[in-house]
Amino acid sequence: MTDQPVSGPALADRTALGGVIPPLCTPLTGAGELDAASLRRLCAFLLDAGVDGLFVNGSTGELAYHTDEVRLAALRTVREAVGGTVPVLAGAVDMTANRVVAQARAARDAGADAVVATVPFYSPTHPGEMADHFRAVREAVGLPLWAYDIPGNVQRKLPAEVTAELAADGVLAGLKDSSGDLDQLRSLLHLTEANGARAQGFSVLTGSETMADTALALGADGIVPGLGNVDPHGYVALHRAMRRGDTLAAAAEQERLRGLFGLTRVGDPARLGTYSAAIGAFKEALCRRGIIATATTPLPMRPLNGEERAAVARCLAEAGLGPV
Amino acid sequence: MTDQPVSGPALADRTALGGVIPPLCTPLTGAGELDAASLRRLCAFLLDAGVDGLFVNGSTGELAYHTDEVRLAALRTVREAVGGTVPVLAGAVDMTANRVVAQARAARDAGADAVVATVPFYSPTHPGEMADHFRAVREAVGLPLWAYDIPGNVQRKLPAEVTAELAADGVLAGLKDSSGDLDQLRSLLHLTEANGARAQGFSVLTGSETMADTALALGADGIVPGLGNVDPHGYVALHRAMRRGDTLAAAAEQERLRGLFGLTRVGDPARLGTYSAAIGAFKEALCRRGIIATATTPLPMRPLNGEERAAVARCLAEAGLGPV
Amino acid sequence: MTDQPVSGPALADRTALGGVIPPLCTPLTGAGELDAASLRRLCAFLLDAGVDGLFVNGSTGELAYHTDEVRLAALRTVREAVGGTVPVLAGAVDMTANRVVAQARAARDAGADAVVATVPFYSPTHPGEMADHFRAVREAVGLPLWAYDIPGNVQRKLPAEVTAELAADGVLAGLKDSSGDLDQLRSLLHLTEANGARAQGFSVLTGSETMADTALALGADGIVPGLGNVDPHGYVALHRAMRRGDTLAAAAEQERLRGLFGLTRVGDPARLGTYSAAIGAFKEALCRRGIIATATTPLPMRPLNGEERAAVARCLAEAGLGPV
Amino acid sequence: MTDQPVSGPALADRTALGGVIPPLCTPLTGAGELDAASLRRLCAFLLDAGVDGLFVNGSTGELAYHTDEVRLAALRTVREAVGGTVPVLAGAVDMTANRVVAQARAARDAGADAVVATVPFYSPTHPGEMADHFRAVREAVGLPLWAYDIPGNVQRKLPAEVTAELAADGVLAGLKDSSGDLDQLRSLLHLTEANGARAQGFSVLTGSETMADTALALGADGIVPGLGNVDPHGYVALHRAMRRGDTLAAAAEQERLRGLFGLTRVGDPARLGTYSAAIGAFKEALCRRGIIATATTPLPMRPLNGEERAAVARCLAEAGLGPV
Repeated sequence: MTDQPVSGPALADRTALGGVIPPLCTPLTGAGELDAASLRRLCAFLLDAGVDGLFVNGSTGELAYHTDEVRLAALRTVREAVGGTVPVLAGAVDMTANRVVAQARAARDAGADAVVATVPFYSPTHPGEMADHFRAVREAVGLPLWAYDIPGNVQRKLPAEVTAELAADGVLAGLKDSSGDLDQLRSLLHLTEANGARAQGFSVLTGSETMADTALALGADGIVPGLGNVDPHGYVALHRAMRRGDTLAAAAEQERLRGLFGLTRVGDPARLGTYSAAIGAFKEALCRRGIIATATTPLPMRPLNGEERAAVARCLAEAGLGPV
Repeated sequence: MTDQPVSGPALADRTALGGVIPPLCTPLTGAGELDAASLRRLCAFLLDAGVDGLFVNGSTGELAYHTDEVRLAALRTVREAVGGTVPVLAGAVDMTANRVVAQARAARDAGADAVVATVPFYSPTHPGEMADHFRAVREAVGLPLWAYDIPGNVQRKLPAEVTAELAADGVLAGLKDSSGDLDQLRSLLHLTEANGARAQGFSVLTGSETMADTALALGADGIVPGLGNVDPHGYVALHRAMRRGDTLAAAAEQERLRGLFGLTRVGDPARLGTYSAAIGAFKEALCRRGIIATATTPLPMRPLNGEERAAVARCLAEAGLGPV
Repeated sequence: MTDQPVSGPALADRTALGGVIPPLCTPLTGAGELDAASLRRLCAFLLDAGVDGLFVNGSTGELAYHTDEVRLAALRTVREAVGGTVPVLAGAVDMTANRVVAQARAARDAGADAVVATVPFYSPTHPGEMADHFRAVREAVGLPLWAYDIPGNVQRKLPAEVTAELAADGVLAGLKDSSGDLDQLRSLLHLTEANGARAQGFSVLTGSETMADTALALGADGIVPGLGNVDPHGYVALHRAMRRGDTLAAAAEQERLRGLFGLTRVGDPARLGTYSAAIGAFKEALCRRGIIATATTPLPMRPLNGEERAAVARCLAEAGLGPV
Repeated sequence: MTDQPVSGPALADRTALGGVIPPLCTPLTGAGELDAASLRRLCAFLLDAGVDGLFVNGSTGELAYHTDEVRLAALRTVREAVGGTVPVLAGAVDMTANRVVAQARAARDAGADAVVATVPFYSPTHPGEMADHFRAVREAVGLPLWAYDIPGNVQRKLPAEVTAELAADGVLAGLKDSSGDLDQLRSLLHLTEANGARAQGFSVLTGSETMADTALALGADGIVPGLGNVDPHGYVALHRAMRRGDTLAAAAEQERLRGLFGLTRVGDPARLGTYSAAIGAFKEALCRRGIIATATTPLPMRPLNGEERAAVARCLAEAGLGPV
């Protein structure tokens, strides 16, 4: 039996979702359990900065590292903290359709306004199976569905042509593009203009911390930057500058944020590109800014060492960010 | 709180697990639900052929495609069908340690004698985190733990040095090597001879359908061939020939099985290397041999077309395999 | 013995080289020999369209497919056709430093104003060896040296930090970025602003046909588009629009050119991304526009079939391009 | 005009070439020039150890690093040193057919008995173009042609089916398999048995230092081990043991050689897998054994540091190798 697709409550009366929608970090206690108090403080900090939505259980939220219970507890905590003021998107990331459906239904029942799912991973997949995968998830779960294009993690790029077709058919409500491929992003924007999906509210969000202004200039609606946990005011300022057409101001803000993003590259070379480097630095920065209680990362991530933590502190200082 | 590691019941009185241990297909009804009757027939067929163990919820078992409920139902069905005659290994495959622990505990409670887990996937991982990952899983779950080295699916090779260290420390009871890298397999065998792990029963199994005799000649203890669902007698004969030192007979049998393995490559070129091609062909062959009821594969795998099914039939005929 | 570095004649009195600098196709006769008459017509066509320089023996010029003799004959033909009106850059692409030096000296003697070289390829290289490679080439050849960053062909990305250091040291006169990585391009522009190299004339060119306006908006000086052989007027118009700050006009022109670029994707799927598809389509289009005599491609490239040629014709028609 | 294919003189009266055929290191003087005296000593050392052929200008011979002049000088030196006692194969490695033909003709004129060429590299190639490439080279050069399958360097695997077809057609005289893919090697041996090419003398050589006994057990005719420069006696002993069916003796020798091969992994982690690590270690070992005069490697390879050189010395000592 499949559920009836219905529009998510907080998204029903919107056209395209856009703006700044940070993918929330998942604060943990020193014992490695969900630190709900810190998560509530983080939500308040972001809402106060003017963000337009929140994305729970994304890659920045350590989705790969937490049990279903922790994922859902994080979602419920955010749902309560937000109280309907902005939409809450939730990751429903698992290996293939049946498992994604299970994740998505649980997220829906925990109050998600929309769910975000990747293409199948683990088992090599026929290209034609990507579209079937999203169709199956959409049919089974009555919530707006975002495709999460993150080939660095799932090894396969969602082709712009497939996304555009699913957008036109109403299967996808939007795309979170974490591929870094601006050329394909542009193709997708062109294709969804041409097939009418954009006019119907199909939303295109970039996951890039460092090319956000460019993605917006190309026509994207919004930004989902992991670094937005640390400096939401910066991304809100960048987005507002772009909206009023002030590309110079946006580029200057982007340049400052590009410098700040260096905090994800402070570790030893073997650490470059790992999640323990990026998430560890975000959490360290959030601690230093006084927003979360500990920088604990989940098993088996290795914590930052003292030298790395000091480098994060320097990056914050250079970007002009202190305790809040 | 972590559980006390204890030896799995059926593995407690063994030294190294070896022989032929097929990774079971997961038969489905036409409606896509677990077909327990077909699964029981498949178990009986394999046991009757003389296999030495069964591996449930491996990649061949479509682990990526089934919900937790289906995974556990399959495991319980096999547990009952086997009745303690041979050990039952169960896949506990998920993205990282906490999620793997949840899978492994459920598998233990459903009667698995040992669990099989990959290195972390989805999020890029620091090399040093691989060992911590297996240590965390082993500490939390009181069952023998097999490392599942399958870089084609999880993108990272488990280095022989890491495996050998974990074997010596008693963290790993064995390795299922689905990497195809015989050079590293040889290094691992050498390292675990040298550090005493082999003498203590550390078991090395190859997942290769096509180089099984070579892996055994290098010193591996056993074979976990997906194709062994279709032709268990062939792999049992191959293994017995190697055990008695008859490498020529083993090579001849291997050559026949290499030909039969062509049934996974009958699809159109875009299908090459996909799971729907390989699993679809195994299931089609099991249908034609009269062991399972339907060749249904889970969402979003595309079923074989008529031409592909006919080609599977030809491969069976060439290998001399008919209904049983 | 090494040569004294001297400034290239036509580049000596410039600051940064910029504008539109097409990488020339290498027209062949039906027998596969260099078609000098067609090459001269192509040069005249491009100069007439207002290009700012020419790049001979780039990847679009089939550098991998031609002997040293053909490479040099093409360069001499272009040198004569241009007659000093615009600078001529020449590819000096080979596997490592000593071979690159041989190529570069021959190019210098045949009249190149600057040479363009990749990082080492074929043998896996230590990161630190990349900088030494360019230093050795620069020391041995008295011509301005451009780094050619084309990881799709040579498998390794030239890191922005390395390029910036070589730019500051005067080893590199510029970069041709064919990596498609706009994020790194932006880092390079930032680093070379900061270290003074840009102020001294370090030139940054993008090889992208499809994101040229974006690269220019980020601060690149010029464009080296393979498609510029077919439609130089389009790229000149795009570049001029960007120079006068009319990003909307540039984007519209870019969108038209993105459509035209579809002519490189008209072949069967096995052909996608191959050079015979891209170069074959460029040459077919140049034939249909009446600029070169035959669409012959070198061994072992497979020629376009009739259906593919017809699709190229349709792409031209849609972009409003006819015979000249 | 194409040359008439003729049989190479020293290969004309053989059936399949086999045995031990080391890919020669290219000794350099401290100034980086060819050290012909050292190269002659190396040839004498290898011939004295009982090798069955020599391979000049292979990857171990630093083919990517030397100019055409140095390549040919090395070939002529070896040709003279060998004096017809064993066949001399020469690499004719360049990016595509026309350039390979130029290399191959020069090698032929300098006395090579056969040439060895890879699939096209640098420009992405249509699968069907691989066969055309070898056909074009064979037609143009009157020497036996070996395919050099080295996907780690040229990024593309030569499929067994293509090799087998070219073997049956007489285009290829043999294969040097440096892919490490023993499964494909086995397929090739099967296919060339089946199509008659093996019966006509098609020769299959493995480039593996570490799995040589396994490749021979599968049916390969010979070994082309870079490490054979350092310890030719070991590989000759291994090959002879396999020829007389003593797989245990061969495996023991192989295990010792696997240990010795550790000298290529003594550098810092950033060096792992680079050519400066492997070639540097081979040359250092040859110096310490008193066969070549200096361990100089070509630009831009970084020389081994003192710690790395000491580690090479330890590897030699552990393998029981001293000065000769």
